[in-house]
Amino acid sequence: MTRILVHGTFVSAPDPAFLDVRADSWLLAEDSRIVSLTGERPADTEDAEVRDFGDYIIIPPFTDIHLHAPQYLNRGLGQDMQLLDWLEHHTYPEEKRFSDLEFAGSVFGELIDELVHIGSLRTVIFSSLHADAALLLMQMLAEAGLESYVGKVNMDCNGVPGLQETTEESVRETLRWLDSCKELPPRVKPIITPRFAPSCTPALLTELGKIVEKYDLPVQSHLNETPEEVAWVAELFPDRSNYLDVYDYYGLLPRNKTIMAHCIYNTPAEDELLARRGVLMAHCPTSNLVLGSGIMNVKRYLGKGWRLGLGSDISGGESLSMHDIMHDALKSSALICRSRNSLCERLNYAEIFHMATRGGSSFFGNCGAFEPDMPLDYLAIDDSMNTRHHDLTIEERLQKFMFLGAGIIKERCLGGRRLNAVGHAWD
Amino acid sequence: MTRILVHGTFVSAPDPAFLDVRADSWLLAEDSRIVSLTGERPADTEDAEVRDFGDYIIIPPFTDIHLHAPQYLNRGLGQDMQLLDWLEHHTYPEEKRFSDLEFAGSVFGELIDELVHIGSLRTVIFSSLHADAALLLMQMLAEAGLESYVGKVNMDCNGVPGLQETTEESVRETLRWLDSCKELPPRVKPIITPRFAPSCTPALLTELGKIVEKYDLPVQSHLNETPEEVAWVAELFPDRSNYLDVYDYYGLLPRNKTIMAHCIYNTPAEDELLARRGVLMAHCPTSNLVLGSGIMNVKRYLGKGWRLGLGSDISGGESLSMHDIMHDALKSSALICRSRNSLCERLNYAEIFHMATRGGSSFFGNCGAFEPDMPLDYLAIDDSMNTRHHDLTIEERLQKFMFLGAGIIKERCLGGRRLNAVGHAWD
Repeated sequence: MTRILVHGTFVSAPDPAFLDVRADSWLLAEDSRIVSLTGERPADTEDAEVRDFGDYIIIPPFTDIHLHAPQYLNRGLGQDMQLLDWLEHHTYPEEKRFSDLEFAGSVFGELIDELVHIGSLRTVIFSSLHADAALLLMQMLAEAGLESYVGKVNMDCNGVPGLQETTEESVRETLRWLDSCKELPPRVKPIITPRFAPSCTPALLTELGKIVEKYDLPVQSHLNETPEEVAWVAELFPDRSNYLDVYDYYGLLPRNKTIMAHCIYNTPAEDELLARRGVLMAHCPTSNLVLGSGIMNVKRYLGKGWRLGLGSDISGGESLSMHDIMHDALKSSALICRSRNSLCERLNYAEIFHMATRGGSSFFGNCGAFEPDMPLDYLAIDDSMNTRHHDLTIEERLQKFMFLGAGIIKERCLGGRRLNAVGHAWD
Repeated sequence: MTRILVHGTFVSAPDPAFLDVRADSWLLAEDSRIVSLTGERPADTEDAEVRDFGDYIIIPPFTDIHLHAPQYLNRGLGQDMQLLDWLEHHTYPEEKRFSDLEFAGSVFGELIDELVHIGSLRTVIFSSLHADAALLLMQMLAEAGLESYVGKVNMDCNGVPGLQETTEESVRETLRWLDSCKELPPRVKPIITPRFAPSCTPALLTELGKIVEKYDLPVQSHLNETPEEVAWVAELFPDRSNYLDVYDYYGLLPRNKTIMAHCIYNTPAEDELLARRGVLMAHCPTSNLVLGSGIMNVKRYLGKGWRLGLGSDISGGESLSMHDIMHDALKSSALICRSRNSLCERLNYAEIFHMATRGGSSFFGNCGAFEPDMPLDYLAIDDSMNTRHHDLTIEERLQKFMFLGAGIIKERCLGGRRLNAVGHAWD
């Protein structure tokens, strides 16, 4: 049995309403699982490997639950367009290039380096429709020591020339990809990924639902991002009662194993189903602001029976950094508060911190805080820059790191393994 | 006569509707004034000092026309509060500390380093009410080679204990400060700065108006930032027809020499007066989003007879970086477009680039682009990172730098003098 003892100032948000702040404390892990977090060093730990971070702030790693890996290079381009125009002019042409594995590998390498650097150690990712590129991405993520769900995208209609499959191809390639995934280490897993309802024929959705059931797989897709998209889905699927019902009807909402991105224009019936199925909603505030999609009213859901995490949604959002995403979550809720003239709609920093850590990482099981039986995961942050001229509370230091990125991540650890900032595991 | 010849790819926005893109061109300056920008190297320039930046993008420096220097350390704190609460809990307590010149100097030093680093080489700044701190800030800005207007803040009511002057003190200290400013180099200039209408008694406003007239000084203040503030001003000044009329009545809108920050809730009468007086409006999108103040409809004004620039408004905004501010301008206009269901409200990147450069710097005279008779000012940017895998147009490279900060500023030049990134002029 290996024992690790981490010392520092721990901050986590196991619950949206509970910021757990532990100054000058000791976290004990055995075989990379957390045993205890105590103010005194536990007795009989002379044999433990000690990682003493002094006054550093130690937080759980970030989890980014919605991003499009092939759009990494597209960040910052066409950000003055709306969703459907932007898909056609920027997103789809770029994604075509991922039939080229050499190109794909060079882009994924840069993406992974940045994910490690910024501390987003868990991710749920859309790849392109190319099965081999999705597999390559998974191999590279695994090699970097990251945990991830990756989806080969399915789209057999409403694409563009060169970026669309036949129904049969889409199913066959999905099965081939799933078969190859069996060789991968368990920290990278496949997730079924119909791009969004308008990209899939009923025939494809039917087949994907069967695959989900047969192999007990999770699902991710998009939901209610813009009014134009909602109207289009209603046109395409006139027999379904709402957008979410399309996915549900085809068996694509496996309980507690589904992520739906955006969720801005949910109807009450959809809200009810999202809660009932335990769908994890990906709030993507940066993307929603940039594309002018609208603002998700997070406060309507948080701590009230729904599950919520944060997504960068590159390249709808331009930034992978959770600092930017957390800050945009704050801005978005401030605007909702202004437009409704209701202070109670405003998120506080602890709620946002919860979504960025425990909220999103709940998709990966029992992790994302510093509680017994959770894996030993953390970011150790030197934020001495913040206290040069100020006596700040720990909560204020956290806010400075959250919203300014003021602090340097000195060590990243996932499941007991330390990662370095150029994307290769140390331990 | 000294002649400088700069070679590279020049991009500027002399007008909101005109992005001037000059690939592989030559900028000739004589005695630090621009003479020409041509595709061929001008004849008879063998004697010129050549600064060859190859394929770098060369843009005018950024101008930040609204920021509060004493709030530099407060960035990121209390960002889940509304304006008037946040002033009381964070802003005012911090500003009190600027009676201590040693503390003030250390904060100003860090602020100036960052301004140089990020390329905001011209600024219009609120200091605190302390005349000596304002003077120190001006001395430090001048030494760093930056151009700036700095205001000693005036506030003789509705402050907090320890951060308020008597009317007499405020006037006396303003005059003492103005007298000291005469010793400073011309690149730093004083600007009369009533904090905002609620902070000043009619007696103080009267005296400030006389000072503005007597010494022919510019003015900066806040206008129409939140509905609560607008209502408060109406209560405090029941005889004035609107918020802007308070400043106008007391002679605090000198023509073409006034900056008003925010301007979100302007009435038509105020709009008319803003245009007539040539007031430069400071759009501060980051601050407006964070504080939930609302969104200024920039498109209503831009290119239609009003003057507009961008402000970071730290620490209402958390970021000094023009990248963040430009991106938030984009997001804000996208939301207006969504809420009005009108695509014509959306800003494009060129309009935003104009505000960040020529728009704001118009307060400093004829500068902010690459036109004859303008001073030789530029940022030379190595953005080779953007073209590793992509053939990007120059316009796309500009967008990447604007919205992602993807690019490294390799040289900063203001009025022909090169600045280095730790805040001290080279030449």
